[in-house]
Amino acid sequence: MASTQNLKEATGNHSSWESLLPDFPKGPLCKYRKKASFNWKEMAVLLDGKDIIQLKNRIFSALESDPLFVHHPGEELSREKYQELTFLRCKRLFEYDFLTQQEIIENPLKIFHMVLCIGMYDWSPCIQYLLHCAAFGGTLLSASERFAAYMKKIFGMKIFGCFALTELSHGSNTKGIRTTATFDHNTQEFIINTPDFEAAKFWIGNMGKHATHAVVYAQLYTPDGQYQGLHSFLVQIRDIKTLLPIPGVVVGDIGKKIGQNGLDNGFAMFHNVRIPKENILNIAGDVTAEGKYSSSVKDVKERFSAALGSLSSGRTVITAVSMTNLKLALSIAIRFSAVRCQFGPTDDEEIPVLEYQTQQWRLLPYLAATYALDYFCKSLFENLTEFYLGLLTKQRSQRQADIGREIHALCAASKPLTSWTAQQAAQECREACGGHGYLAMNRLGEIRNDNDPNCTYEGDNNVLLQQTSNYLMSWMHCIRDKVPFESPFGTINVLQDYHHILDWKFTAMSVEDCMDSSVPLAAYKWLVCYLLRESDLKLSKEKQSGRSDFEAKNNCQVYYCRSLAIAFIEQTVLQRYHDYTHDPDIPSTLQPVLKNLSALYGLWSLSKHLAVLYQGGYASGEQAGRFIQNAILELCYRLKDDAVALVDVFAPPDFILNSPIGKANGELYKNIWGEVLQGSKTLNRPSWWTEFCINRPVAGRLKSKL
Amino acid sequence: MASTQNLKEATGNHSSWESLLPDFPKGPLCKYRKKASFNWKEMAVLLDGKDIIQLKNRIFSALESDPLFVHHPGEELSREKYQELTFLRCKRLFEYDFLTQQEIIENPLKIFHMVLCIGMYDWSPCIQYLLHCAAFGGTLLSASERFAAYMKKIFGMKIFGCFALTELSHGSNTKGIRTTATFDHNTQEFIINTPDFEAAKFWIGNMGKHATHAVVYAQLYTPDGQYQGLHSFLVQIRDIKTLLPIPGVVVGDIGKKIGQNGLDNGFAMFHNVRIPKENILNIAGDVTAEGKYSSSVKDVKERFSAALGSLSSGRTVITAVSMTNLKLALSIAIRFSAVRCQFGPTDDEEIPVLEYQTQQWRLLPYLAATYALDYFCKSLFENLTEFYLGLLTKQRSQRQADIGREIHALCAASKPLTSWTAQQAAQECREACGGHGYLAMNRLGEIRNDNDPNCTYEGDNNVLLQQTSNYLMSWMHCIRDKVPFESPFGTINVLQDYHHILDWKFTAMSVEDCMDSSVPLAAYKWLVCYLLRESDLKLSKEKQSGRSDFEAKNNCQVYYCRSLAIAFIEQTVLQRYHDYTHDPDIPSTLQPVLKNLSALYGLWSLSKHLAVLYQGGYASGEQAGRFIQNAILELCYRLKDDAVALVDVFAPPDFILNSPIGKANGELYKNIWGEVLQGSKTLNRPSWWTEFCINRPVAGRLKSKL
Repeated sequence: MASTQNLKEATGNHSSWESLLPDFPKGPLCKYRKKASFNWKEMAVLLDGKDIIQLKNRIFSALESDPLFVHHPGEELSREKYQELTFLRCKRLFEYDFLTQQEIIENPLKIFHMVLCIGMYDWSPCIQYLLHCAAFGGTLLSASERFAAYMKKIFGMKIFGCFALTELSHGSNTKGIRTTATFDHNTQEFIINTPDFEAAKFWIGNMGKHATHAVVYAQLYTPDGQYQGLHSFLVQIRDIKTLLPIPGVVVGDIGKKIGQNGLDNGFAMFHNVRIPKENILNIAGDVTAEGKYSSSVKDVKERFSAALGSLSSGRTVITAVSMTNLKLALSIAIRFSAVRCQFGPTDDEEIPVLEYQTQQWRLLPYLAATYALDYFCKSLFENLTEFYLGLLTKQRSQRQADIGREIHALCAASKPLTSWTAQQAAQECREACGGHGYLAMNRLGEIRNDNDPNCTYEGDNNVLLQQTSNYLMSWMHCIRDKVPFESPFGTINVLQDYHHILDWKFTAMSVEDCMDSSVPLAAYKWLVCYLLRESDLKLSKEKQSGRSDFEAKNNCQVYYCRSLAIAFIEQTVLQRYHDYTHDPDIPSTLQPVLKNLSALYGLWSLSKHLAVLYQGGYASGEQAGRFIQNAILELCYRLKDDAVALVDVFAPPDFILNSPIGKANGELYKNIWGEVLQGSKTLNRPSWWTEFCINRPVAGRLKSKL
Repeated sequence: MASTQNLKEATGNHSSWESLLPDFPKGPLCKYRKKASFNWKEMAVLLDGKDIIQLKNRIFSALESDPLFVHHPGEELSREKYQELTFLRCKRLFEYDFLTQQEIIENPLKIFHMVLCIGMYDWSPCIQYLLHCAAFGGTLLSASERFAAYMKKIFGMKIFGCFALTELSHGSNTKGIRTTATFDHNTQEFIINTPDFEAAKFWIGNMGKHATHAVVYAQLYTPDGQYQGLHSFLVQIRDIKTLLPIPGVVVGDIGKKIGQNGLDNGFAMFHNVRIPKENILNIAGDVTAEGKYSSSVKDVKERFSAALGSLSSGRTVITAVSMTNLKLALSIAIRFSAVRCQFGPTDDEEIPVLEYQTQQWRLLPYLAATYALDYFCKSLFENLTEFYLGLLTKQRSQRQADIGREIHALCAASKPLTSWTAQQAAQECREACGGHGYLAMNRLGEIRNDNDPNCTYEGDNNVLLQQTSNYLMSWMHCIRDKVPFESPFGTINVLQDYHHILDWKFTAMSVEDCMDSSVPLAAYKWLVCYLLRESDLKLSKEKQSGRSDFEAKNNCQVYYCRSLAIAFIEQTVLQRYHDYTHDPDIPSTLQPVLKNLSALYGLWSLSKHLAVLYQGGYASGEQAGRFIQNAILELCYRLKDDAVALVDVFAPPDFILNSPIGKANGELYKNIWGEVLQGSKTLNRPSWWTEFCINRPVAGRLKSKL
């Protein structure tokens, strides 16, 4: 639902939000800005509220004013230099300390916005900061109060942390981790050991060059030789005075990656490194002085729910990171498309490429997705906040456990959906900007490359989707037994009407009938129920034919469980956005365009499932598909004049966006040209010119060597 | 059809091809290699023939033995250094002179293979070479015999060429080019001028740092002030002794791109640069000494066909380049998947990820596409050779003109199909290899980034597809008037049965029924006819509603003409591969796996059009879609044990593939680990370590600055 505060502000007096957001410079984009059906500032206030806008302004202008964050157009940064800059920038974030404790308590959503603002500038320092404070610090904090003393060191950067789970030969299958921790009761120490290089910790962010401490996951053995399962330990890996490795630790940098090269991902091997007994993160269990294992079995459910929840926070962040990449890519591609002219009705007149149906169809659905996912991310963050509040207040209710499961299921699908959408959007935006999109300075390549790991880390997208489908399938017994059920956030309540919904049909009789998101929403409800039924049937069939549970599950993913999880999360995103955009309190000046976005997102996402709608009998006849397709094109057409204003709402300042073709002034050629000429060697003769002028090749000279 | 020579060799005695292709080292991949249903060497001989395999061996081992081509693992190459290396490597290609004139005449396909072998190592020197010899040299040669003298200079690298068409503000719309060429009959010179920076030549490969000459496209004006249209001119841009710009030319490097950074793409502005009269490339017309324009109107048709054909050669090359990227990406991802184990039926047993249905479904259809497109590329190159033979022998027949149109329509769709397939495959392969796919050393990022411009240059993919649909739509009058028609290569002959085919239905009654490519082929024929009818109807409707031709055409692209062009080229690729794999002469040892590949490619491509099959009434009921989906999964399952051998057939030697996880020995962890430790600073303390240890941040120090 729309935030009451934002609503009040948006409907409040114009002058107050006029001053909050500066006007854009005059230029070629004015034409579209004038055509917009709404005031972009009013929209920005509705979506974020003044308080958040002020926070964004504060962060963006701090970065822009700070020489450490200056851009270096035309200069090449070595990886080492980039890692150094990233570290310095990360350090600077502590010095700015953008949010007070009080602000965070009053509105936890501010953390979310702060992180994304920094990420819009560059993900490397942002992720370095998150890994240190949240993945490392947060894990320690939630493990036990005995680590509370570390917090000051962490926030004063006296130590620098990393989170070391994956190994060279194990990622998704964390149970397969092979690092060991053996308790020595004589010295009251754990001995951390890497059996061979395949068990080296690998991929660990911050570990490559500078982390001093790591949360290390290892298989625990007690002195009786008993295996006690996977546990985590705080292990120092570098000396804090010299940054040299601790004896027994071999630690290094894994090398260049496709993206995020400011971040130093590393590896480590432990040669019987001894750590004090109290360094075990006693989340799942602990060891007594005598070396006896004591598992905190009594609150297994609570622990399990907590563990799921803490996985969810990483995935929620990645969902938001990916959504932010959508904002960056779309800002660039839409502004480019509104200015770039090519061909026209006559030889003398060229029109902006945004006027072409194909270009609209390539970009505007992603713009709609950006709006829907932006709203979803905020709502997901609120869900997560509720979960953490329960943890902090030590809620042991069924509801708290259910929240843990539900949020786990949501994030395990929202991360894949959003990271893939951003990946595809970045590629489409790159291509939609033609050659200029391929020029590195315009940043679409960087956005795509930096977004890429979102599809992999914190759980491979395809593997994660199984978590969501498992959750959905787990309700089948309630459905079959007609037992009433619901979930805390209500996302699976649609299944209450399972039997009834399966009888639904596509009933729209015209394109106009399809222009509201209620149409795709109804179709999605049917789709989720249908895919749930089919997945359940398929699983039974596989089992009946004698396959093991493992095999049966594996054979139910493609076209069944995988599609189910995707359809479910798309339906959830759409449901929330539909409800938001149809809220009667939304100002009438903004509601039409928001409803168009909701309808376009719904129909476009749904259109990828059109075959299933036909296959399962929800749709039939030639017209059903045509209505949906024509509605998509009509909505693109209706949104094209709003597109520039819609990206103005979320585009960061030019300095942050850092893309000549994406600048707010729309002077794309002047901006490119200016930046090309900034290159330090743009006009210079190459240093190797004599290789051309003097050392001429003798054709075929080396033929005899073949 | 299968080449008779290759067939003879493949069915010949084993010992002869045993020696041609070395065995692979023993290792973890042996398990799958042993399970293969066929002999990979026999397959290689069937597909390429001994002669081509020997050529490949010759090129690959020359590069591997040459220190200039050595890899630098763990080292960072600056862009300047990479450009230098690229230039030196390109020069070295002239020194190797891999093919004699005689060899080329005997088998023009050898040029095709030579180019792709070099590209497998790195596209930058390969494309530099092609731009110089083909785009520059070829254009001069085909323009007029008066440029024949340049050939020696080109092949002796006395001059270095580039092809300068696009400008900063004009790419696709070449008619909008704004550089001018004005004839001055007093001095018998053309004056080349750039009116402003937006008309600067931009994106020109080789121009950035080292080209000395350019073929420059400009709008021609005769002394009477008359505008004569777009023409091309040979313009010197740099001094061949000093490599400094010619007075009046501002030339430079456009900066870093997403990929292919060895290539120096550049820009140039001409300030009234004078060139001799004979430097006009008199393709479309010429100017007399008195300044009169004379157009070679008499053979307009021939000229037009020639012009289309020359566009086609670039697009054929890009089709093949993209197909080669598929080979590289699949080699890496399949070998990785056959060795990487994760999860398993029990906690103690992990299985290769290739055993998972999801992984099979993600990768094996792309493997099938690689085989189908490899065959298509060769056949397309043969079509192009026939076209050029006609040009050389000055054929003025209707057939020659028809060939020009048909090959133009084929390339204009095969380039989009193949470049997009490779782009998606590179992304899927990257993700399918998890984190290790994201590590730069494993090359999947490079493959994706270097493939990216294939979607844009030589015609934006979406714009190009219109050429193909226009060609197809042009046959509608024959169809309507029931006039007999055919095309030289027969690709549109399917439309002869248009009325009849539109009545076809999907008739398979079981999954087993769908296991041959004849099933998707029949569906594709219906699909092409259906989309042609719908596109034609849509265009008429748009025109009837009063839209201009320009608008009407634009509004017919999405869901109509665009889909039509894609379906047509997929059908053509499938038709050719189906015919090849079903040729009774194919050895019975190879035919089953080849037929599986053909069926999988066909069904998988078709499945993306499933909604249209239902929508148009070709398919109905739940079973149709299920059969297709289950057949895809069943084919993936049948092919999984052949997958490693299938990539062994086309994977280049390890040195060329240059990917630790893609090496033929399958020792993926040892290979990664070894390369990580090659990094020059892998284990070193960062140079900026004092920034952590001494200059600690004071939290909130800069808060007051906010």
